[in-house]
Amino acid sequence: MNDILLRPMALTAAAFTHFGDVLETEGRDGVWINEHTCRRFDDLATVDVAAGGGRPLISIFEAIPRTLPLQVRLLERHPLSSQAFFPLDAQPYLVVVAERDAAGRAGQLHAFWSSGRQGVNYRPNTWHHPLIALHRTSRFLVVDRGGSGANCEECVLETTVAIDAPT
Amino acid sequence: MNDILLRPMALTAAAFTHFGDVLETEGRDGVWINEHTCRRFDDLATVDVAAGGGRPLISIFEAIPRTLPLQVRLLERHPLSSQAFFPLDAQPYLVVVAERDAAGRAGQLHAFWSSGRQGVNYRPNTWHHPLIALHRTSRFLVVDRGGSGANCEECVLETTVAIDAPT
Repeated sequence: MNDILLRPMALTAAAFTHFGDVLETEGRDGVWINEHTCRRFDDLATVDVAAGGGRPLISIFEAIPRTLPLQVRLLERHPLSSQAFFPLDAQPYLVVVAERDAAGRAGQLHAFWSSGRQGVNYRPNTWHHPLIALHRTSRFLVVDRGGSGANCEECVLETTVAIDAPT
Repeated sequence: MNDILLRPMALTAAAFTHFGDVLETEGRDGVWINEHTCRRFDDLATVDVAAGGGRPLISIFEAIPRTLPLQVRLLERHPLSSQAFFPLDAQPYLVVVAERDAAGRAGQLHAFWSSGRQGVNYRPNTWHHPLIALHRTSRFLVVDRGGSGANCEECVLETTVAIDAPT
């Protein structure tokens, strides 16, 4: 039973601002370093991992491609930390996040299409679906939190939402 | 005047252990997450950025390809933090690091060839050359430190070393 069919829109910093950061070089100047052999695009995300004695963790996620439309019924969030993803295979992928309703549960869903040259960083407590790889197994570098404390909550949606292919 | 010609060896965790971490999935099992749609290779690097009130910073470096042999005469190190690099274009690149001599200056150099599916994380105080991109402009995701304090030192080598192509 798919009451809602959601078509992803292009991922932009403006459209994503409610949920976190878009990590990208496009539209930014960068600073030349290392005797003009390298451009540094600095400080692209607000890394927030120190709560409860947390420490930054670097990991690699290897995501199996999914078939669209994809039925979404479960979201998760990390109350103690941000979580940043950057694609390592320059493959497009989908990002699904939700607003919080008055009770703090997952409300209105939003889906975004990343070019594969853009990463995302979810703010703490942002409801999200696991990244949706599209065409082949896709690797992502992930920066999130190590340390004790309950840092993963789940929310089962009251209405299943199907994520469609981008236009 | 090139007294020394250094040929890079393959980057492995064992060969690099004196200088930091190799971030890679090969040879690791990973843990299946997200209802078996994703494998997580967890905690691949020791991120050490808290000294002096530092915070983790995520940036993108875009490095211009270099021609080999490349003369190396200047190294740098970051006393207050580790610095992790992961290639975003799956392009091979070279890593040049140095042991510390008795005076703490850059001593014996070592050069490594990364497959392009391997990142590196320099420990604090590890002398290194800027990453050497090889074939085309190559992007790297970088995790290092933001905050005050002098976190970059340089060392001019007494003898120029030329980095050759890997075999």
